[in-house]
Amino acid sequence: MSGTRDLDRRYVFHPFSMAQTHEQGGAQMMARSAEGCWITDDDGRRYLDAMAGLWCVNVGYGRERIADALADQARQLSYFHGFSSMATEPAAILAQRVIDKAPDGFSKVFFGASGSDANDTQAKLVWYYNNVRGKPEKKKIIARDRGYHGVSVMTGGLTGLPGLHAGFDLPLPMIRHVSAPHNIWTRHAGEDDAAFSARLAQELEDLILAEGPETVGAFIAEPVMGAGGVIVPPEGYFPAIRQVLDRYDVLLIADEVICGFGRLGHWFGSPATGMTPDLISVAKGITSGYAPLSGVLVGDKVWQVISGAGAAKYGVFGHGYTYTAHPVMAAAALANLDIVEEEGLVARAAEMGAYLNTALARAFDDLPIVAETRGKGLMAAVEFARPTAEGWQRFDAAQTVGPRIVRAALEDGVIVRALPNGDAVSFSPPFTVTPEEIDLAVSTVRKAAGAVCDALRADDALAPL
Amino acid sequence: MSGTRDLDRRYVFHPFSMAQTHEQGGAQMMARSAEGCWITDDDGRRYLDAMAGLWCVNVGYGRERIADALADQARQLSYFHGFSSMATEPAAILAQRVIDKAPDGFSKVFFGASGSDANDTQAKLVWYYNNVRGKPEKKKIIARDRGYHGVSVMTGGLTGLPGLHAGFDLPLPMIRHVSAPHNIWTRHAGEDDAAFSARLAQELEDLILAEGPETVGAFIAEPVMGAGGVIVPPEGYFPAIRQVLDRYDVLLIADEVICGFGRLGHWFGSPATGMTPDLISVAKGITSGYAPLSGVLVGDKVWQVISGAGAAKYGVFGHGYTYTAHPVMAAAALANLDIVEEEGLVARAAEMGAYLNTALARAFDDLPIVAETRGKGLMAAVEFARPTAEGWQRFDAAQTVGPRIVRAALEDGVIVRALPNGDAVSFSPPFTVTPEEIDLAVSTVRKAAGAVCDALRADDALAPL
Repeated sequence: MSGTRDLDRRYVFHPFSMAQTHEQGGAQMMARSAEGCWITDDDGRRYLDAMAGLWCVNVGYGRERIADALADQARQLSYFHGFSSMATEPAAILAQRVIDKAPDGFSKVFFGASGSDANDTQAKLVWYYNNVRGKPEKKKIIARDRGYHGVSVMTGGLTGLPGLHAGFDLPLPMIRHVSAPHNIWTRHAGEDDAAFSARLAQELEDLILAEGPETVGAFIAEPVMGAGGVIVPPEGYFPAIRQVLDRYDVLLIADEVICGFGRLGHWFGSPATGMTPDLISVAKGITSGYAPLSGVLVGDKVWQVISGAGAAKYGVFGHGYTYTAHPVMAAAALANLDIVEEEGLVARAAEMGAYLNTALARAFDDLPIVAETRGKGLMAAVEFARPTAEGWQRFDAAQTVGPRIVRAALEDGVIVRALPNGDAVSFSPPFTVTPEEIDLAVSTVRKAAGAVCDALRADDALAPL
Repeated sequence: MSGTRDLDRRYVFHPFSMAQTHEQGGAQMMARSAEGCWITDDDGRRYLDAMAGLWCVNVGYGRERIADALADQARQLSYFHGFSSMATEPAAILAQRVIDKAPDGFSKVFFGASGSDANDTQAKLVWYYNNVRGKPEKKKIIARDRGYHGVSVMTGGLTGLPGLHAGFDLPLPMIRHVSAPHNIWTRHAGEDDAAFSARLAQELEDLILAEGPETVGAFIAEPVMGAGGVIVPPEGYFPAIRQVLDRYDVLLIADEVICGFGRLGHWFGSPATGMTPDLISVAKGITSGYAPLSGVLVGDKVWQVISGAGAAKYGVFGHGYTYTAHPVMAAAALANLDIVEEEGLVARAAEMGAYLNTALARAFDDLPIVAETRGKGLMAAVEFARPTAEGWQRFDAAQTVGPRIVRAALEDGVIVRALPNGDAVSFSPPFTVTPEEIDLAVSTVRKAAGAVCDALRADDALAPL
């Protein structure tokens, strides 16, 4: 084992990994360098990163311009904070750039360093907003099964994935969940988009009524769900949800940590999916992952309450991070947005996204364990399941169908992810990805999936239809 | 108002600021550049930053070496994650460097991007640890009044400052607080260190017994409290606390976000204050604020449970941030630690700290509103209070004694902070600060405090003794 591999094995407590397995066997891949969509490991092997890291390296790896921006700003003003009305110029310019691209009705950005802290801030804003308005009971937050909103004590509970709850006593008691609009697992047979949306909106309304509308403060959702399976809402879904929320004075939070800044082929995912939020969270794409930076965009309705009656009631707004509005991170974000704009990468994400989704549909059409290929823009997934006479069934988690496909693809030099809670495999490449790179990613995963399908057949794990 | 000042006013939601006041009047200072201990604003005015930003810019501003490290790493590998046993070299090397400096008995580092997320992770670790051990009720976390542990939903409640709770429904129900060892406000008249420590340990034991020891999971404390007033524990305090915790199987978390990496004149604050923690949080000083990076150091006792029975019970450890172990942030940390080591800055912090504390004691000795000057290493504070025949009384918060002193010092070109919950003014300069810079900071604040004292007298706000 190389020196750094051994240090990693001995000293790093890895996120979302098997602790003991890692400590014994070490890393499955040690990344050393990267350029464009390609990672090179410590053995000199190259991998096509069809996930852009964790859905974030939108402009691709190795951009000189962002590296220079980090260094230039670190030389000029390596740090300063925003407490007590202190300020720095990169944060001010960035806030304006973000608001300029955001949907109408937003005028303020609260900066942080991660999607988790952005959504944690959202919860605090919802509670503050309703305390100021004299509605101290209106505090529950409804999220969705499979939604991914972070891993802090608060946001790990908003996340609707059992693997993030078990062992951690999550979710906290003020959190509720409703169904995700999942074509395979929650759409009823024969249900069209309108009926599916209406039923899910009704489920939300039933929950709000059961809880008592005076106790429900907000609903949080990703425009297109990411880690929960790349779940694109059916037509009419968010408008139907919004009607219910309006009826009961419930705020809508759009978690645009993945969708924001172009991944769906639009600057923001909300307008692209019919969502009209009161609050928006952003992170990943704002810096393309080169630097930890997040933001909470505050809509005018909420801002009026915070800045007016809120300040009168509570004085100084008692929330903020040491690294809120960090000038070096903001400079990285500005350089990143320059690249996205000058190279027309949002339009390119739309174009390459269409190519990717078509390629997936064609390549996986004939594989019997493919329940669906789906996506929007440069977010896509293939859902694997067991075909039966009664329809699709999930594979046993112990069969690790998704992880085996991902592992086989990695061995063939392509990085994709196995999403939890079923067997979806996701694609989320940099916006600079080429059609040839998409073809390579799709064909490699198709080959891996075919081999796993053959192995399942050989094990009699696929019952004959 | 300049262009960037106007953007800031219109678009930035500032942390720990008055929202409406800021939106109307804009920033009180717009930092443009910085070098060493000095900030230059957008009008070309220079300020001596006697707070090192927010207790963090330990090596001073404008270090080429860290700027270069950021850029070099961003060019080589601008991002990769640590999920699913993926790894990067800077994080592995950094983990080893951190463990090498840490107290004995620690072997693993879980990285994040802020002190808040580190302490949020600590809470989850405590709960996981006790779930694995079959003690599902053992979940309460006891913190201290005035302690500062972050602003997330979980950690804002651990923080023992009312200004971080009001309006946000904090703390969460599993959090408790005990008294801080504050010489002015909690030490009884005539109480020596041993008696004071014993009484506070007894208060903790009484609380644990009242709650039920089977419900208490951890106690969290800063070695020297920072934002709560720069509170140095009395001799024997942490050993007495540790005895109580051991009696009831309660973990000790050291929040070394400020103290870690040299501020007390020692690499870690725990050994310097007699604290023997099971878990340690670090942030600020690990990068000198040049980049958002935090760490949770896991002691062997906890790690054995997590990696052994924990992995067997729960499988993949379901926690981690996109920016956990970010290679660019880790590279900044490594360059920062190189500087600290090569320039001998930990010893320098001890030396300049002694100089600062002596200078404060001398300069403020004669001012009647000074209840105490105190500090350890390069953390120091002056506590202002109203002298009465019965002893010290707090000034009315509405008199804003601390903030007025800080504002006057800022007008004279020196940045210090007014700490909440009383009227302490803090000093926490870069480790590279010179005796001349310390003299300037101390004399400027002394002059500001004298003027405020005169104004209080003129307003008859100081009753004659």
